[in-house]
Amino acid sequence: MGAGHPDYLTVQAINALNRVDVFFLVNKGTEKGDLLRIRREICERFIESSTYRWVEFADPARVLSDPAYTPDIRSWREKRALLYRSLIADSLQDGECGAFLVWGDPALYDGTLAILAGLLAEGTLAFDYEAVPGISSMQALAARHRIALNRIGETIQITTGRQIAGGFPEGADSVVVLLDTKMDLRAISGDVYIYWGAYLGTEDEVLVSGKLHEVRADIERIRSAKRAEKGWIMDTYLLRRNGAGNTGGNR
Amino acid sequence: MGAGHPDYLTVQAINALNRVDVFFLVNKGTEKGDLLRIRREICERFIESSTYRWVEFADPARVLSDPAYTPDIRSWREKRALLYRSLIADSLQDGECGAFLVWGDPALYDGTLAILAGLLAEGTLAFDYEAVPGISSMQALAARHRIALNRIGETIQITTGRQIAGGFPEGADSVVVLLDTKMDLRAISGDVYIYWGAYLGTEDEVLVSGKLHEVRADIERIRSAKRAEKGWIMDTYLLRRNGAGNTGGNR
Repeated sequence: MGAGHPDYLTVQAINALNRVDVFFLVNKGTEKGDLLRIRREICERFIESSTYRWVEFADPARVLSDPAYTPDIRSWREKRALLYRSLIADSLQDGECGAFLVWGDPALYDGTLAILAGLLAEGTLAFDYEAVPGISSMQALAARHRIALNRIGETIQITTGRQIAGGFPEGADSVVVLLDTKMDLRAISGDVYIYWGAYLGTEDEVLVSGKLHEVRADIERIRSAKRAEKGWIMDTYLLRRNGAGNTGGNR
Repeated sequence: MGAGHPDYLTVQAINALNRVDVFFLVNKGTEKGDLLRIRREICERFIESSTYRWVEFADPARVLSDPAYTPDIRSWREKRALLYRSLIADSLQDGECGAFLVWGDPALYDGTLAILAGLLAEGTLAFDYEAVPGISSMQALAARHRIALNRIGETIQITTGRQIAGGFPEGADSVVVLLDTKMDLRAISGDVYIYWGAYLGTEDEVLVSGKLHEVRADIERIRSAKRAEKGWIMDTYLLRRNGAGNTGGNR
């Protein structure tokens, strides 16, 4: 589905939407009603027929109690897999096509493809499936800041908020942080430059960049205010050690 | 421009193509005539008017003699910046719109945005510019293999062939390698799983996955044969330490 703006959809994604009979739509509760609405609007804008159906479902509760994290995600994903199995079995007729709409790109920190692979391996359902890549929030972030994610000859690390809670990753150059729901950015100090963006590609987009120690308070303030106003926030950022310096890119 | 297939273009990119008066088209020599042709075909398919112009230019020679790499890239980029400055000054009238067509996503190991930022900072030309994200080859790779790039709770490292010539990066989990022109993959050993793809999203696409020690010879053979046949190859791969094991994704 891309990072939020309908114009991020690819021709491939639009063609795929037009083949779908049933859209499975996860409902994460009222605070994210906006996201549900944007998805429906995207479908209405790009789908030519009106014969498709929506099947809404509530996401299983995700209990994060184990400090190791992975066991909790595994157990949550098993619940989701059971749910997906029933959704597919109950809502799709033979020969019909279903779709799970994933924000950004399903290859980045999303479990849908793994769940589908697991269901197929289990053998109780028979189906074929394909993945359609999309513009992720980190790409929208770079484009809106008009930068490359890497500096010349350096690596890019993509990680989650949880993993930077211990500080700037050892040996990393440019670090893209996704899913920082708890403001783990607080753990980062030193000579670090940040490119931050929220609601990327939408009308609510906010961009901030600068030396982290100079803009951190701004980012925290904007984050709290927007979250209070809209009920949810989706943000992404790029951290660079040793100032901005180098202007990125390679070729 | 996305990873190669015209269907990877976004609505945003198509709208942008339709605003362009002059396309600056780098010509890297006869062996990459295919890539020039695909770009022209993409433009012809999606642009409604026929009032746009092409300006072809030869890429400055890239001399890689310094083992530190960055100085050579900097010097090459300076040559390219001089060239871009003349192209913009000589080919664009006031109020016209020019475009540099970048494969994949300009945020990943591409220098165009940095060169444009540099030209603007220099102050001899005045222009505004924007970046349009695209589906990169690593996203096409993941989609075609139907996997997430990350494993649960782990990081993703994006790097270049040159940087894995010393072996699997220390502390990394999943490593995406771009621009491996010299088969630096040879330096990798141990319990590593690979997802490899060439000409992703095009009719020549080849996919291979498996334990590296079991599929390495296949990949080398396919790579040599295709390069001999077509005169060029573009490939990308994902390496995972400790087998395939975990099925990826997070949420």
